[in-house]
Amino acid sequence: MPRSILVIVLLVASLAAGGRVHGAPPADPLGSWNDTGSKAAITAFVQAVTTQGSEKFVPPEERIAVFDNDGTLWAEQPMYFQLAFALDRVKALAPRHPEWKDKEPFKSILAGDVKAALAGGEKAVLQIIAATHAGMTTDEFEAAVREWIATARHPGTGRLYTEMTYRPMRDLLDYLRSHGFRTYIVSGGGVEFMRPWVQAAYGIPPEQVIGSSTKTAWEVRDGTPVIVKLPELGSLDDGPGKPLNINLHIGRRPVMAFGNSDGDLQMLQWTAAGAGPRFCGIVHHTDAQREFAYDRTSHIGRLDKALDYAKASGWTVIDMQSDWRTVFDPPAAPATPAPPTPGR
Amino acid sequence: MPRSILVIVLLVASLAAGGRVHGAPPADPLGSWNDTGSKAAITAFVQAVTTQGSEKFVPPEERIAVFDNDGTLWAEQPMYFQLAFALDRVKALAPRHPEWKDKEPFKSILAGDVKAALAGGEKAVLQIIAATHAGMTTDEFEAAVREWIATARHPGTGRLYTEMTYRPMRDLLDYLRSHGFRTYIVSGGGVEFMRPWVQAAYGIPPEQVIGSSTKTAWEVRDGTPVIVKLPELGSLDDGPGKPLNINLHIGRRPVMAFGNSDGDLQMLQWTAAGAGPRFCGIVHHTDAQREFAYDRTSHIGRLDKALDYAKASGWTVIDMQSDWRTVFDPPAAPATPAPPTPGR
Repeated sequence: MPRSILVIVLLVASLAAGGRVHGAPPADPLGSWNDTGSKAAITAFVQAVTTQGSEKFVPPEERIAVFDNDGTLWAEQPMYFQLAFALDRVKALAPRHPEWKDKEPFKSILAGDVKAALAGGEKAVLQIIAATHAGMTTDEFEAAVREWIATARHPGTGRLYTEMTYRPMRDLLDYLRSHGFRTYIVSGGGVEFMRPWVQAAYGIPPEQVIGSSTKTAWEVRDGTPVIVKLPELGSLDDGPGKPLNINLHIGRRPVMAFGNSDGDLQMLQWTAAGAGPRFCGIVHHTDAQREFAYDRTSHIGRLDKALDYAKASGWTVIDMQSDWRTVFDPPAAPATPAPPTPGR
Repeated sequence: MPRSILVIVLLVASLAAGGRVHGAPPADPLGSWNDTGSKAAITAFVQAVTTQGSEKFVPPEERIAVFDNDGTLWAEQPMYFQLAFALDRVKALAPRHPEWKDKEPFKSILAGDVKAALAGGEKAVLQIIAATHAGMTTDEFEAAVREWIATARHPGTGRLYTEMTYRPMRDLLDYLRSHGFRTYIVSGGGVEFMRPWVQAAYGIPPEQVIGSSTKTAWEVRDGTPVIVKLPELGSLDDGPGKPLNINLHIGRRPVMAFGNSDGDLQMLQWTAAGAGPRFCGIVHHTDAQREFAYDRTSHIGRLDKALDYAKASGWTVIDMQSDWRTVFDPPAAPATPAPPTPGR
């Protein structure tokens, strides 16, 4: 074959092997990102704060990076995934609660009308959370989450929810950890809803998860101490609640912070206001074809004030459509190659 | 010289060099402990859970050890050291509060009558905490703690408070970390009171400190975001509050737990109730000569129910007098040897 074709064949083989052909440079750890400004800003910052002798050098113990979860590490449309979990719990628990047939928001949930169920706003959501999360021990709740996350599927894609995590953000988490960062989740979602699966999904251990929480109570049941979830909000980890909880749980100001909505604004402001180098990034959902496109007027994950603030402050706004080479991992390949089938 | 004397001289030289003479076995990391049952129980447990192939093996990510602070890692008599800090703050702030001259508990504090000041019980303590901790930003509070801890001295010994940490417990922290444990403080003391100095004192980073906390508020002052401490209790990290906060902050059950009072009982019970190997230890203050002797009837650090529970459960009760070779580090040696002087 002509030499030029040979080069192409070798190049393709090299890429297929993840660039790990002997003697070739190592694969790009951020290969899921396009070579645009967002990636350049991230890598330049990380190089600056992790290079010994750099005037921006940050010692390893101070390298804290915080990430919102819903809409930043995994998708959040058409509803927060934890709400889908709660709705499924209502259906599972309904046989034990015959009174729900005549009582909102449960009546609408059981009739399959989520919109009507949520018409009651925050009060309805708290009622759902209380009914489905409270009264259980933390061990029971963990078991329920584990079962759901292993089996429930997203209504739009039919995929497991953990398959709707963003490959570029997972690569970013790995990249930061390989540069000595400790990565934390700081989410409006429930801390006990996240802990059972985020280690496998993101490589983030339970002690580095901060989230909303119910109050809890200490009880001794049949001689065994248990922790019981109460139907009362302990901490709402959203908006100003995020920096307050970062202060309470970590006690250090983050060096890097990533979010995607107005609920992340104060966390980003708190990060940016620290002395020394800081990095703030916002994931902007601009990709209706591969994911969803929404910002200023969305009920879920509204990005309005924080978008203006980010632009005025020179923060990095990650354009999902142009900055990300991939969004989700492709479905696991079948054992033998098969012809492509139409998506569901 | 006779051979036997030579051996003794070499042995003493070896001990003086920390046992690090070339060819000699490494120094005992728990050399500040006597070779009694408590030390044997600790080292046997740590060997069992950290030896690959042992049926009690615990993977590194699950090796969490929690420690109470007051009375477990440092002394707590004649009053919790944080209370000494608060009393000193009252005196420092008094010029700005002329009304305190006629108002309890401040009147008694300013008159030097701590006993009368604390006659008001928990309410008086909360008033003192509110007056001296609240309204400050977290940065201002940290600066006040740093200044106090660097200069204030214990009324009985005249030593810095950080010189009243227990050498055997600091050695234990090091020993556990060298075996892959992460060491946490879980204290009734204020989380923001401890964080500024525990890294230097114990090698414990801020994110591994759990304590009581005031509520906080997000404010923007002169365009800069700050976190302000409010005069309202957020979390009382004592008694059942300890396991609840361990669950909230760590999300894993500890493998080892150490305390010294009834306020640690639920933390120890929660630890002990976990599946697999668990270790619970109680520091028993039995040494009136080198430290203090108190247990069942003490107002501070009462150890009554937990002592009975520990004995009935086979937990390790550390007898300070017989189990510890040293209690505190000796005062730093002067530059040239000087004859011993009477203690102050």
